[in-house]
Amino acid sequence: MTSINIGELRAIPIISVREVFPGDSVANLIVDALVLGGLRFHAGDILVVKHKIVSKAEGRTVALDSVRPSAAAKSFASKNGSDARVVELAMREAKRLVRKKHVLITETQHGLVCANSGVDVSNVDGGKTAVLLPADADRSAAIIHRTLKQRTGLYIPVIIADSFGRAWREGLCDVAIGVAGMKVIYDYRGKRDSYGYKMHATEEAVADELACVAGLVCGKDSRIPACIIRGYVYRRGKGSARQLVRPAEKDLFR
Amino acid sequence: MTSINIGELRAIPIISVREVFPGDSVANLIVDALVLGGLRFHAGDILVVKHKIVSKAEGRTVALDSVRPSAAAKSFASKNGSDARVVELAMREAKRLVRKKHVLITETQHGLVCANSGVDVSNVDGGKTAVLLPADADRSAAIIHRTLKQRTGLYIPVIIADSFGRAWREGLCDVAIGVAGMKVIYDYRGKRDSYGYKMHATEEAVADELACVAGLVCGKDSRIPACIIRGYVYRRGKGSARQLVRPAEKDLFR
Repeated sequence: MTSINIGELRAIPIISVREVFPGDSVANLIVDALVLGGLRFHAGDILVVKHKIVSKAEGRTVALDSVRPSAAAKSFASKNGSDARVVELAMREAKRLVRKKHVLITETQHGLVCANSGVDVSNVDGGKTAVLLPADADRSAAIIHRTLKQRTGLYIPVIIADSFGRAWREGLCDVAIGVAGMKVIYDYRGKRDSYGYKMHATEEAVADELACVAGLVCGKDSRIPACIIRGYVYRRGKGSARQLVRPAEKDLFR
Repeated sequence: MTSINIGELRAIPIISVREVFPGDSVANLIVDALVLGGLRFHAGDILVVKHKIVSKAEGRTVALDSVRPSAAAKSFASKNGSDARVVELAMREAKRLVRKKHVLITETQHGLVCANSGVDVSNVDGGKTAVLLPADADRSAAIIHRTLKQRTGLYIPVIIADSFGRAWREGLCDVAIGVAGMKVIYDYRGKRDSYGYKMHATEEAVADELACVAGLVCGKDSRIPACIIRGYVYRRGKGSARQLVRPAEKDLFR
């Protein structure tokens, strides 16, 4: 059955994206890969890109051999069986240490709370290079969004995703660390549900849920760095991943 | 274009499910709604059901007029402009109080950490009735899974989803509170990525990500209580939503 059902959401993996180098345009790489696969963007599509391809294109990588870990980083690493150079990078990228136990939970410059400030060594080049988060992933998303407009003529919202751990729950889920072209939270408050009851406290983090879809179709160890989401009725707007970060004064778990 | 792309994930909303009453079989309601809509399950499908329909079918609702709030519930409610009867129910459903500020964050009997123990008054009957979480959502999922097998002959994993707030991040995302028929976490640890680097700390909470897909296609205030996820290659197994709950000894944010 290939007919499309009303209200159906589709997530189409973008494969055969070529190896990424510093200075590359992620938008161009993706459009090229789509052409290669006989695919194209449709009006209404959203693009979700895993952050690693963005970081690589922006040169946000560090050769681990070049990193001289501090005494603090060495001490933490030796106690926890981790790589002192990665710990060092995580500390450098952190604005604040949230928890320091068997794992380093930090707040990044962007306000993201995650393990190791998002510093990652898998899926790069066999463990010689660490990938940092994009310096400003909202800006990265805006550039991709703009370039897609130029190349395709279409307005395509862009989400940059990374997989984060959560409090209280096991396993990682993808979240939106950069967004352009759409609202990140859909606010049901004040709306009436189908029974006429006024809803409250129902702001849905749709950009994070869209990031999760990429988590499912892109996986972790594959060469599928992005996907198209088709059929989701997003709200246009100046969305920013920073709007998904809870302000300190509302944060009960600092 | 109606062709299906390789690796594509599809989420098909299940509409026209009739009003649910205590004693109803959720599996039967859903199969009936599919038939009505000219749809059917395919081999490989996953069913994600929003918890409210399950709670209602199991009679896990409470008439708010019948609730006599304690002094503690009244005091908290008056300070925070909330309904004392809902606060009372949230306290009764809680095993442990995690945070008590402008909102009550509790740990439920199932170990779930969420606002108000998951007690909800929207989407019921105009605010007269509160809906509690299913008493044992893994068991609820198992019953739906079994009944679907009987009615369709197919092995359909079942996820029961509710939308929860998160630490550090704004907005709600759906999570899996009950699961049957599939593994909830996909463990990439020990696997090699596409560059041959051995990955660690990459356990993905796929059941939560699948729940998020339902968050997107079912929305909050619509009468779409479930969706089919097609095209996701799940791992069969005795999955349980309890495996997604971080054990106390590993929890850094108690």
